[in-house]
Amino acid sequence: MKTYLECIPCFLEQALRAARVTNINDSKTKRLLSEIGLLINQMPLESTPPEFGKIIYGKIRMLTGKSDPYAKLKHKNIEEALRLYPCFQKIVHNSSQPLLTAIKVAIAGNAIDFAINTDYDIEKEFDGVIKSPFAINHYKMFESHLQKADKVLYIGDNAGESVFDKILIEQLKKPTIYVVREIPVINDVTYQDTIDSGIDKVATIVSSGTDAPGLVLNTCSNEFLKIYENSNFIISKGQGNYEALSDEKKDIFFLLKAKCPVIARDLSANGGSQPEADEPLAHTSGGNVSVGDIILKGIK
Amino acid sequence: MKTYLECIPCFLEQALRAARVTNINDSKTKRLLSEIGLLINQMPLESTPPEFGKIIYGKIRMLTGKSDPYAKLKHKNIEEALRLYPCFQKIVHNSSQPLLTAIKVAIAGNAIDFAINTDYDIEKEFDGVIKSPFAINHYKMFESHLQKADKVLYIGDNAGESVFDKILIEQLKKPTIYVVREIPVINDVTYQDTIDSGIDKVATIVSSGTDAPGLVLNTCSNEFLKIYENSNFIISKGQGNYEALSDEKKDIFFLLKAKCPVIARDLSANGGSQPEADEPLAHTSGGNVSVGDIILKGIK
Repeated sequence: MKTYLECIPCFLEQALRAARVTNINDSKTKRLLSEIGLLINQMPLESTPPEFGKIIYGKIRMLTGKSDPYAKLKHKNIEEALRLYPCFQKIVHNSSQPLLTAIKVAIAGNAIDFAINTDYDIEKEFDGVIKSPFAINHYKMFESHLQKADKVLYIGDNAGESVFDKILIEQLKKPTIYVVREIPVINDVTYQDTIDSGIDKVATIVSSGTDAPGLVLNTCSNEFLKIYENSNFIISKGQGNYEALSDEKKDIFFLLKAKCPVIARDLSANGGSQPEADEPLAHTSGGNVSVGDIILKGIK
Repeated sequence: MKTYLECIPCFLEQALRAARVTNINDSKTKRLLSEIGLLINQMPLESTPPEFGKIIYGKIRMLTGKSDPYAKLKHKNIEEALRLYPCFQKIVHNSSQPLLTAIKVAIAGNAIDFAINTDYDIEKEFDGVIKSPFAINHYKMFESHLQKADKVLYIGDNAGESVFDKILIEQLKKPTIYVVREIPVINDVTYQDTIDSGIDKVATIVSSGTDAPGLVLNTCSNEFLKIYENSNFIISKGQGNYEALSDEKKDIFFLLKAKCPVIARDLSANGGSQPEADEPLAHTSGGNVSVGDIILKGIK
């Protein structure tokens, strides 16, 4: 996805929010915003938002001197997610469509996103997502491609979310590689977080090599790119990975909740009103994508 | 009011919104945002937000080549307000407290603000405001100061709003000077707008001399500053004028609707929880100020 003009004020808002989390003083925060302001001129709108996000969060690391400002919050999220894990595992097991329900649980986990909102009610969020229809629902395609796949490449998003990704991976029943960021960026999942969340028990953990808040391929390691090229069934979680990968021509399924109007508009223009011919209508709103909608979108 | 860090991303959002209204292309809009980004570094947080607003809207005029990009919208707003005028004049006349009701009508008119939102339902807005309690209610002080005043200086805000200011001025029953911006900035009221709205029938129209979206005194004309200094009862409408004048030591009454969390917080810290001892409780929420609250605040 290209960077829209609306993303520019949002970059400054994100930087401000991150500065608040790291507790840096107003003078340093002003400096951070000034430095980002200076970069707007050089920011090509053709590049994806996480490419600029990489620069922003690099600046935050430099200004704060903290390599992982979100460490405490991530830890708290993982703990909270682990507390809810048995309950949602049971919901999936008791469901008449465990794979579909597990997808919804994994998307609900995507609500744990401090780049968007530091204040959320996780149990309410889960309940809402599980009861919601998809605004884009390519579940049938997902199911049939999964059957043919020999393995799954699963691109993680947030740290706490990875606990719920585990529930989905258990339902995929295929060897899975779970992809994490190379170093901490916002609350995105890193290698250490997967040990804490226990997802290392059900998947092989691999770093993408990137420090961008999305799988920006030209910032990934060669080792990872080889794995990526050889993958024929990819699951991409969250907005940042969607922004980075939405124009790829590979077999990627995007699982996310639309959290901002720009993403919702981009999704609407790219499949929002093209439901599958025989998709389960009970799970599809069928219209354009709005903020808050849940998405299961394959690249056609 | 000083500029808060949260105002910085908002300046970029306002610029983007104004660029959309003026229909300039993406490349020019990007240039506008870049130029504003470059200025963040030089922006002193001690100055008030409309001082920076003056620079932003000056840049928009230069980049678009349009001296009044909001002209059409202002005209439409005034027409819509004139359509509603007889109905709200009747509501005030039939009210048991016509002055208080007229104040609420004038605040409801403040909802017509395209710097904040280009999409609103004016009749719903009015109904909501008239039924709402004030979050800060210095009505008794307003009433007693008005009785003692020989004249009123009334600082206008938006163009459409001026139609409803007329209803309040009719209830003040004092000679009134109505203050307008020197040249068009956002949808703020100018001399020409007062002719269209008919407020020139009930007040003497005077330009402040400023082109800032708020009464920034150091950008006003000497002629206006003399009038301002000699005024002992001043009504200031809207957020922009509050931002510019909230630290003044004069007898100013601020009538506004809090439209952003920064203003709401600033108001909370400056009188939100200090109701008058004998104020009419039915018209006071009594707590902190939230976005959407209506305010009648005197400087104590």
